[in-house]
Amino acid sequence: MADSDSPTYPKLPRNTVNRYGKPRGKYDYETIHKIVNSVQVLHVSFPAPNSDPFPAMIPMLGFMASFTDPNASLTEPLDLYLHGYISSRLMKLGNTSLSDEEGLPLTIAATHLDGLVLALTPNHHSYNYRSAIMHGYATPVTDADEKMWAMEKITNGVIDNRWENSRIPPTKTEMTSTQILKVRVVDASAKVRTGNPGDDRADLKNEELRSKVWIGVVPTYLKYGEPIPGAENRVAKVCRFVHGLKSVLICATGS
Amino acid sequence: MADSDSPTYPKLPRNTVNRYGKPRGKYDYETIHKIVNSVQVLHVSFPAPNSDPFPAMIPMLGFMASFTDPNASLTEPLDLYLHGYISSRLMKLGNTSLSDEEGLPLTIAATHLDGLVLALTPNHHSYNYRSAIMHGYATPVTDADEKMWAMEKITNGVIDNRWENSRIPPTKTEMTSTQILKVRVVDASAKVRTGNPGDDRADLKNEELRSKVWIGVVPTYLKYGEPIPGAENRVAKVCRFVHGLKSVLICATGS
Repeated sequence: MADSDSPTYPKLPRNTVNRYGKPRGKYDYETIHKIVNSVQVLHVSFPAPNSDPFPAMIPMLGFMASFTDPNASLTEPLDLYLHGYISSRLMKLGNTSLSDEEGLPLTIAATHLDGLVLALTPNHHSYNYRSAIMHGYATPVTDADEKMWAMEKITNGVIDNRWENSRIPPTKTEMTSTQILKVRVVDASAKVRTGNPGDDRADLKNEELRSKVWIGVVPTYLKYGEPIPGAENRVAKVCRFVHGLKSVLICATGS
Repeated sequence: MADSDSPTYPKLPRNTVNRYGKPRGKYDYETIHKIVNSVQVLHVSFPAPNSDPFPAMIPMLGFMASFTDPNASLTEPLDLYLHGYISSRLMKLGNTSLSDEEGLPLTIAATHLDGLVLALTPNHHSYNYRSAIMHGYATPVTDADEKMWAMEKITNGVIDNRWENSRIPPTKTEMTSTQILKVRVVDASAKVRTGNPGDDRADLKNEELRSKVWIGVVPTYLKYGEPIPGAENRVAKVCRFVHGLKSVLICATGS
């Protein structure tokens, strides 16, 4: 992943990758935005209310885009939009004075597991992965146009063109029961590991060990199976899901 | 997943599943421990040092087991062991007085994505998933036997029997550079969604809509590809990885 041509997030103590910072740490927009927009589940953490010592954490759905510059690419400044239900703890917090004036401080993680790295010793076992951590301030989206636009972006982020091919616009009830949080990202970092196991020289000299222990990588990825029609489905087409930078559902009349 | 025969974690305000609490919320040991021990990556969150408003969050590797009762099943009380590098921020925190006497408060998330749920309206789109959130106090494992045992459990949690089939025991340097945190879990919950989309009656009466919009589930799962031998591999066998409650690497001499 190129991190030369893209602008970068500021490198602060809290988002600096220390362990294996070189070569694994990345701060450029493109690497980070790509990781976030291609993951299906984000983990969102925020300080818990009532001085509870445990941060709250929720798996959530989100998408990065720019409302003021809708054609912005991954190398440009983007906001994160998170989808939620209005009565949830997070959304309540986002509405109250518990958060400071900037909004509710959120930490967001996006993690792709790319492989199991098997080495000669337990110590050098590892994962190949692409992970991003972002810090930002969240506020509820109140502008009706921006809210609708963000809902469309989030839906189409999972399956391209799904929004316009389903029953829209949302009803008034659907609009009020859904809340969108906009996160202004203040800093972020990514960490990426690729390639082979890195064993110690001493172990690599041990030919007996090497003759017995298989080393290498077991690649892993999120697999999308054959779509299963719901009990209420009336479309007599066979669909398959193709995952890419834009994921699509391709349906054709079956034979 | 049965939640009747298994003991349950206490249901406190912070871990009670409110939204869709019935039927999705679960509190029994078995459901929660199974989710945690079958996920490859945990997300761990903890209060940041120096009054930073953003909680820290790290993807980590961990495994639940009982050192005092090594044969304990998933329906019995288990501790969570987390694997880390001693100089990381979390491990440092776990060693200092920044944490209270009970240990460092951690929130841990384990999330499996099981499918994309496609409905007639954007509003009823959803995911099928199994997710667990745990709260507990972490302390570094100082007992040498427990530390070695936990390292073996964590390694074999990724691939069964890998520990004993690689170069062990770890060197003194490996032992000191690796730290294991033991998390005493105080409460936890799981949330599970399965099955079909749940559309509104009004939309289901709209035959024109139903004739156009395919509804159902796209199943998703973590797929393990063909193992790729590393450049330094000397084992002339072809291996495949089989993922189950215990995952194994099966190698056979190729033809």
